[in-house]
Amino acid sequence: MKPLYLLLIIFSTTASAQTKALVLQTDFGLKDGAVSAMKGVAFGVSNELKIFDLTHEIPAYNIWEAAYRLEQTAPYWPSGTVFVSVVDPGVGSERKSIVLQTNSGHFFVTPDNGTLTLIAQHLGIKAIREIDEKRNRLPGSNASYTFHGRDVYAYTGARLAAGVIPFDSVGPVLPNTVVSIPYQKAEFKQGIIYGNIPILDIQYGNVWTNIDPTILAKLNLKYGDQLNIRILHNKKQVFEGVMPYVTTFAAVKEGLPLAYQNSLMNLSFAINYGNFAEQHKVASGPEWTVEVKSIR
Amino acid sequence: MKPLYLLLIIFSTTASAQTKALVLQTDFGLKDGAVSAMKGVAFGVSNELKIFDLTHEIPAYNIWEAAYRLEQTAPYWPSGTVFVSVVDPGVGSERKSIVLQTNSGHFFVTPDNGTLTLIAQHLGIKAIREIDEKRNRLPGSNASYTFHGRDVYAYTGARLAAGVIPFDSVGPVLPNTVVSIPYQKAEFKQGIIYGNIPILDIQYGNVWTNIDPTILAKLNLKYGDQLNIRILHNKKQVFEGVMPYVTTFAAVKEGLPLAYQNSLMNLSFAINYGNFAEQHKVASGPEWTVEVKSIR
Amino acid sequence: MKPLYLLLIIFSTTASAQTKALVLQTDFGLKDGAVSAMKGVAFGVSNELKIFDLTHEIPAYNIWEAAYRLEQTAPYWPSGTVFVSVVDPGVGSERKSIVLQTNSGHFFVTPDNGTLTLIAQHLGIKAIREIDEKRNRLPGSNASYTFHGRDVYAYTGARLAAGVIPFDSVGPVLPNTVVSIPYQKAEFKQGIIYGNIPILDIQYGNVWTNIDPTILAKLNLKYGDQLNIRILHNKKQVFEGVMPYVTTFAAVKEGLPLAYQNSLMNLSFAINYGNFAEQHKVASGPEWTVEVKSIR
Repeated sequence: MKPLYLLLIIFSTTASAQTKALVLQTDFGLKDGAVSAMKGVAFGVSNELKIFDLTHEIPAYNIWEAAYRLEQTAPYWPSGTVFVSVVDPGVGSERKSIVLQTNSGHFFVTPDNGTLTLIAQHLGIKAIREIDEKRNRLPGSNASYTFHGRDVYAYTGARLAAGVIPFDSVGPVLPNTVVSIPYQKAEFKQGIIYGNIPILDIQYGNVWTNIDPTILAKLNLKYGDQLNIRILHNKKQVFEGVMPYVTTFAAVKEGLPLAYQNSLMNLSFAINYGNFAEQHKVASGPEWTVEVKSIR
Repeated sequence: MKPLYLLLIIFSTTASAQTKALVLQTDFGLKDGAVSAMKGVAFGVSNELKIFDLTHEIPAYNIWEAAYRLEQTAPYWPSGTVFVSVVDPGVGSERKSIVLQTNSGHFFVTPDNGTLTLIAQHLGIKAIREIDEKRNRLPGSNASYTFHGRDVYAYTGARLAAGVIPFDSVGPVLPNTVVSIPYQKAEFKQGIIYGNIPILDIQYGNVWTNIDPTILAKLNLKYGDQLNIRILHNKKQVFEGVMPYVTTFAAVKEGLPLAYQNSLMNLSFAINYGNFAEQHKVASGPEWTVEVKSIR
Repeated sequence: MKPLYLLLIIFSTTASAQTKALVLQTDFGLKDGAVSAMKGVAFGVSNELKIFDLTHEIPAYNIWEAAYRLEQTAPYWPSGTVFVSVVDPGVGSERKSIVLQTNSGHFFVTPDNGTLTLIAQHLGIKAIREIDEKRNRLPGSNASYTFHGRDVYAYTGARLAAGVIPFDSVGPVLPNTVVSIPYQKAEFKQGIIYGNIPILDIQYGNVWTNIDPTILAKLNLKYGDQLNIRILHNKKQVFEGVMPYVTTFAAVKEGLPLAYQNSLMNLSFAINYGNFAEQHKVASGPEWTVEVKSIR
């Protein structure tokens, strides 16, 4: 029965590798071959890997948006999923290359440049290791020059996801802290909720905030209540207006504004069949803040 | 030999799950994390699923184009493939969430808002079930709010494609009819063919009609024959001109118009190395019609 | 032990099919269903195929860019990978449909219209076969009309990648030569390096040349040396300027130009946190040349 035993081992090893997904995010776009080269390297590590894209349309060098997309998406992927995020304006400078393991069991392979600001806060840091590039770099990639996204991050992420190396072999342990970008956290003070606009729902021009149900509850809202909304850029007012708090776009007429909870359950602003961001010249990022009051 | 027997069972179960593909279509675009969250949910259902994209660049709220893309693509996928299409301007309103099984054995998971207009006509309705959201919603997604594309459609499509649930378990049977968008069907009357412009071949600006070979045959054309083409928007003429009916773009000089059969064998209009739609301000949708005459 | 023996055969056959990837490149864009129809056909050939995208954003009819993307990417995919590239302005004209096997063991399924210019030169031609469309066309696709990308190229590429047919069955052997686009190869003459701008790194506006480390070495540069760069379009000067040769963008201040080696180790020009191509109206293609001198 020895051959059968051997076969069972092979089979179960394969199955376990197949459990794990590799999810890629970059600001490279899809017009050239950079992302495909990353996938080729990952596939070369293991043809059992399941390789997916988060997005490759992060605006060039926009670390904040990279941070946000990871936070928006990661919780919907199974524990054990390995994310590779490469938005790296400082390539070649002092930023560290790291792998973060969250308390939820997800892994993030990325330059430590602010990309993990929101993931670290919301999923929690279990451990961080610095990538030892001597051990974890595509064989044959030139020592004097390295395309980190392909030769280090995709390669290391693939080996981790495929079970070729355990987390321990990434490199030395670092303290449980990441480089973070400052922003207005959601908070309630004297009848007003303060928050940040982390991102726009760009396809529709909806304005998303970081105000979650726990904070929103401080206003004791009922659906249909009117809200006074102020939006500020670097503390200068860009918009002020009143709109109802509703459950669906269909609750207001075409062309009218509304406040609602988005797919992450956070307070958001939209115009039914319209584009709120474009119409009111609102954008997103750490320097955008909102103030929300109930008027009853 | 018991272990071997067990192994064979495991192996064949795996193989059967691997047969089925999940194909996603939305108007979400690829710039944010919404599509990736859908894939994460699907992958969480079964890591044996083969997950593909139809397109995520359907113009926002354009149900007609969603309907067309499904018709254009589905026949080239094997029977048993599960499509999830989420173009859903009425989210939160009265439209039903359904799964359509066609006579060809394909499945379509979508809001019943016109998206299935063309699929129902061309592939035929075998059965329709309404999604019972009590049983078929991502566990832990909030009952009071649901991102349907992710929590209901992707989740249900994935479970169906992976064989986690049979079609019966989707929910109650509905009558064999779907919400349909009216448009000019292809027909021949007194020497003229009438038809619709369902879509543009946007990458090249070619104008596609719904005039198939059976209808086109009424004109008894030979290659090289001249056609008189009228194009109308809401019954108002936008273009009239003469062009030859040919088999390849190379049959006319650069810059000249031609009529040809596209990859779906439908009559289409183009300019060799040019952009017909842009040059003549022609677009597509249910309100666009064409009239085709042979001039001999 | 007969059943076990059988199982081992099945298992290893499956594993071998799973080794092979199918990588697709077109100028179709991702807004319609053409790419998805290609994938459906490929998946119908074998549900064990691993199907990837190189890019579908090649500018319409731009054979040169298709050639470049293949060269940029293919070396990072394992030997045995099958590439299908469909940029085919001459569809229906005399160009041949071929499969090229390189010395590196990669396969390229494409019209022979210049698409293989760079791959043939850099990976080397092992063998070329013309696709016999009588044997290698999607069953049921109309004989009088064929969407080659889907019915011939995707179908043949999928059958090759899945091991359904061996390379021999593609069709008759052709001589070891492909249609090639002329361009300025990198060369050193009397103190000046001449080269071509094959492509822009469009996402960032960086200008890439075909000047590789062997040619660049003729200038005996040290990092920090100043270079005089001329850029010409059809031999007419578009840009002349001086910039340092450095290892990282961070080596110069924001807004300043630099020369560096890109991810392919070729000499390239950029502006730190800027867009060199846009600012100086530089584009790419066979008609663009550069001249590089060291000034010490």
